[in-house]
Amino acid sequence: MKEEDFDFGPLLPAGLPPAAARWTGLARYNFTGGNNDADELPLDGLIAAANSVLAREGRTLATYGLASGPQGYRPLREFLATKLKRDADISCTADEILIVSGSLQALDLVNAALLTRGDTVIFEMDSYQGAINRLTRLGVNVVGIPLDGEGMRMDALADALAELKARGIQPKYIYTIPTVQNPTATIMGKERRAELLRLAGEYGVPVFEDDCYADLVWDGVRPPAIYAMSERANVIHIGSFSKSIAPALRVGFIVAPWSIMSRMLALKTDAGSGALEQMVLAEYCTPHFTSHVPALRKGLRRKVETLMEALNEQFGIAAEFEDPKGGIFLWVKLPDQVDTMKLYQAALKHGVAINPGNEWSTDKAHSHSRLRLCFASPTHEQIREGVAILAEVCRREFGVPARSANVERARA
Amino acid sequence: MKEEDFDFGPLLPAGLPPAAARWTGLARYNFTGGNNDADELPLDGLIAAANSVLAREGRTLATYGLASGPQGYRPLREFLATKLKRDADISCTADEILIVSGSLQALDLVNAALLTRGDTVIFEMDSYQGAINRLTRLGVNVVGIPLDGEGMRMDALADALAELKARGIQPKYIYTIPTVQNPTATIMGKERRAELLRLAGEYGVPVFEDDCYADLVWDGVRPPAIYAMSERANVIHIGSFSKSIAPALRVGFIVAPWSIMSRMLALKTDAGSGALEQMVLAEYCTPHFTSHVPALRKGLRRKVETLMEALNEQFGIAAEFEDPKGGIFLWVKLPDQVDTMKLYQAALKHGVAINPGNEWSTDKAHSHSRLRLCFASPTHEQIREGVAILAEVCRREFGVPARSANVERARA
Repeated sequence: MKEEDFDFGPLLPAGLPPAAARWTGLARYNFTGGNNDADELPLDGLIAAANSVLAREGRTLATYGLASGPQGYRPLREFLATKLKRDADISCTADEILIVSGSLQALDLVNAALLTRGDTVIFEMDSYQGAINRLTRLGVNVVGIPLDGEGMRMDALADALAELKARGIQPKYIYTIPTVQNPTATIMGKERRAELLRLAGEYGVPVFEDDCYADLVWDGVRPPAIYAMSERANVIHIGSFSKSIAPALRVGFIVAPWSIMSRMLALKTDAGSGALEQMVLAEYCTPHFTSHVPALRKGLRRKVETLMEALNEQFGIAAEFEDPKGGIFLWVKLPDQVDTMKLYQAALKHGVAINPGNEWSTDKAHSHSRLRLCFASPTHEQIREGVAILAEVCRREFGVPARSANVERARA
Repeated sequence: MKEEDFDFGPLLPAGLPPAAARWTGLARYNFTGGNNDADELPLDGLIAAANSVLAREGRTLATYGLASGPQGYRPLREFLATKLKRDADISCTADEILIVSGSLQALDLVNAALLTRGDTVIFEMDSYQGAINRLTRLGVNVVGIPLDGEGMRMDALADALAELKARGIQPKYIYTIPTVQNPTATIMGKERRAELLRLAGEYGVPVFEDDCYADLVWDGVRPPAIYAMSERANVIHIGSFSKSIAPALRVGFIVAPWSIMSRMLALKTDAGSGALEQMVLAEYCTPHFTSHVPALRKGLRRKVETLMEALNEQFGIAAEFEDPKGGIFLWVKLPDQVDTMKLYQAALKHGVAINPGNEWSTDKAHSHSRLRLCFASPTHEQIREGVAILAEVCRREFGVPARSANVERARA
């Protein structure tokens, strides 16, 4: 192509997100994104699974959907039905499961089936950036509910529902990440789940349960899914293999009543999610999931202990956080004078990438001095080095932590 | 879940497509969809590729995007840059290529970056159902341009552009499938491509070139891509591995100027397309693509000859079609009294699935008695049996072909 370029500018519709910048590589110390621990990836198992499933039924790749229909590879749905019963107390059949291209496609399908511009949804105040951003783009109002150590606060939810009702607003769903909440890593207890269902029923609002991190509770014991506890078919449940097996495999799933599943299925016009990934996951997970995940969790627990130690050592009392209940991220509060958006920009110049709090919250004042640190991907050494650099940058930019801060502190 | 189900109905936004029906399995004689020939699938090669690429770099699956950034697995983009130069005369680097989840996602990204409700685009009159349906859903007006044996007619395009301009309407793009057009299987010659570019330049309308079937020209010789011939960076080019390797692998690509690529990239919020599929395709295709595809084309050519013979034998002069220039489908005209939408419904009851013309055209009168028959997936025996059943159903429903029709006919 020559340089006398055509100008696409006048053709662009209003409201597009800003143009992407060119990618410049991963940060040396990368505490962002849901990346996982490369050492814990079950590579030999995945290779063996690829060999056996392709040898047995690889020629079905010549047919869209592997002759399993539009809901996805049936053996993977059958594995999920068994797994969801065992782990989350969900009773469903393969016919109630839709395989999607990662839980992000699940978010898109739920949103497309239920939302239109100007609608209102209810979120946890601190929540998953990818979910918040989608709603901003769709022009949907997000009401954030404060969290405590057990997740979304039911008193605040009750107040919000009552206030919205008084204003004549029908929220389209209550979105929650109840089991290892992103970013707070809290777990909603069974009683609170029941209360959430009671409120949802009272106000006629469906619950959108994102259980993407639920496999990574340290001790493997978790409350039943909200989907499982509902008696009214008013819950849409989504999950993923990104956190339990590998994030680059783009495979997630939706469990939902057919009345809404059939609407999402009509909107899934991608001719199916990646078949090879579905085949390999089904072949690997059916025999190995229950032994792989506990080993992964142990490795992740060691990583977060390294991270918490490094934060205590480098930031002292300047960094506040709760010991997470599981997962791959730590939600950290720095002193009020720290603007983590600025800290993010300054740290990136020194090779340290973090998630500034404002990107993970519906309340900018609350999240202004908070940040999310993902610990699964960096090595123990990178965690220690990266946190030391982050503390040095933070000290230079904001005067905290004080240079004498690296004293032992009690766990928050 | 109990039966006292929550009613999602009142929450659904206006304009949703109808709910999907439950899947009831593939038809026994399936002449629909872009499915490929299972016997030609390079299974041993794909298994070997999976083994070698996973053994070498499988641990990168723990990182979103395989450390290749948001445009997709770099070795696959490098293979494509080489392939596109060799086959389509396109000069581009890996940085000008975006890997997507099948060409359907490419359609979605181009549409999201350029279109809004009420816009107008220009299409070939008979065109790909998946592309037409997307625009219907988006509320975009589609102006169909008639085709002849060399694809989109430039006299008709010139008239349409002039008329739209006179009405003050700026079309957002001209969508064309110039190399093995879907469904007519025509190829636009080089001179006509130049004329298309001249008209596009004159009216300031970008060209959207869908080259998904371009690898399947029988003799392997094709005109340069319109993208390659443009000197103004006003062409968006898309392609796919669905037709050359396997449709269930959901991998396609976009080649575009950065000014619009950066807009599409900002809209690709899926955390990357399936990594395992990209890895296996790059590993397999780099050494084997140029030997695999000619073998595949030979097999497809044998299939279409079986199909044309069966149509001649069963339908006689009642079925009119051109010998296709390549691809996986045949576009057939039946006598005017045949409503192929009704034929489709009647045939399906007898296990024969076809694509009724109305779903593949912007002109319902023109396509009313036309149908598309995909021949890659059924066996030679299934093709013969399926066409015989189709003729029998057609005779019963519409009185054609006459029972004595199975005489030799001259090729159209």
